Amino acid sequence: MRNHGFTIWFTGLPSAGKSTLARLLQETFEEAGLSVAILDGDEVRQRLTKGLGFTKEDREENIRRIAYVSKLLTQVGAIAIVAAISPYQRSRDRARAEIGNFIEVYVECPLQTCMNRDVKGLYAKAQKGEIKNFTGISDPYEPPLHPDISVRSDREVPLENIKTIIEHLVTHNLVSTSLVSHILREDSESMSRNIHERTTTNQWAI
Amino acid sequence: MRNHGFTIWFTGLPSAGKSTLARLLQETFEEAGLSVAILDGDEVRQRLTKGLGFTKEDREENIRRIAYVSKLLTQVGAIAIVAAISPYQRSRDRARAEIGNFIEVYVECPLQTCMNRDVKGLYAKAQKGEIKNFTGISDPYEPPLHPDISVRSDREVPLENIKTIIEHLVTHNLVSTSLVSHILREDSESMSRNIHERTTTNQWAI
Repeated sequence: MRNHGFTIWFTGLPSAGKSTLARLLQETFEEAGLSVAILDGDEVRQRLTKGLGFTKEDREENIRRIAYVSKLLTQVGAIAIVAAISPYQRSRDRARAEIGNFIEVYVECPLQTCMNRDVKGLYAKAQKGEIKNFTGISDPYEPPLHPDISVRSDREVPLENIKTIIEHLVTHNLVSTSLVSHILREDSESMSRNIHERTTTNQWAI
Repeated sequence: MRNHGFTIWFTGLPSAGKSTLARLLQETFEEAGLSVAILDGDEVRQRLTKGLGFTKEDREENIRRIAYVSKLLTQVGAIAIVAAISPYQRSRDRARAEIGNFIEVYVECPLQTCMNRDVKGLYAKAQKGEIKNFTGISDPYEPPLHPDISVRSDREVPLENIKTIIEHLVTHNLVSTSLVSHILREDSESMSRNIHERTTTNQWAI
């Protein structure tokens, strides 16, 4: 049995950029010839958790199911990429405990920026009271206490976030440098700028 | 991306022997070093489809979810083994269409034998009317029209059924002979008897 599977779990507010990063990471892994599956919130709500709502209980059950499928994918040696608000620390901790090889990626973005993006027009509806239990507006979001990786989607372009994640995976021997070196090499000038920026950022953002 | 994944889908009446075969096949693949995940009816009902009942609609949704997860596992190059009554031909056909590399295994066993086995004591309850919509008693089971493999669990011991399945997989280049040759070699005398028996059986059982 191959044993190099792991789960990358993106958590964050609606419109924080989880799906964008998940898809970019999926493409990166696929180009590197790795086996990868994506579990994105919206598709999961259609395929695994139809009928569940947005109460705390239903959100927890939603995450339990995603965690179960991610565990299966991880166990067969694949990379599971999850993009789900997953607002509760307890749910994410349980997912980590079940899956084992679990990398929690906090996609940090100020609420106001998420509201301005409002990719699906849901913040507007939530503010008008047309949607109840909307994370960030009328439902809580518990930021990760100890995420494995933290990225700022409002300060860096997605590719820079992806590099941060890949660097972590390489450092922790989860993917080999040779497979992803093209990503790490890419646009090294903007990369340097970015590293400088991140260093500055970290002094007050974390 | 590896592309040798496939799904083995066991269908049959309750107590026909689906779970037994699924577990044995899982062990066989694991011993051969292959990546395999099992989706067994009971665990699935706990982990993916809690809250669903046994109406036609709920059964179809149950199978759709299993098919979705099997597709993900198949796409990442793993072997998904499903053990689920999956009583409707249409549901199984949809699963085949979605998954692609799909091997339908009909675990055939006369209803009376399943009732005598009654592994979970559910036939007894169904007959007393304590369980409604019970497949074989108060709910339909549509036998596969064109299963890829058909095994008789009442006439052959599980190991012989497993050999039948492995032989099919080897013939169709889904697993390599070298990985499973120990299974095919094992107890060649009883194997010969069994082949003779199956030949005789097939004249009237199919």
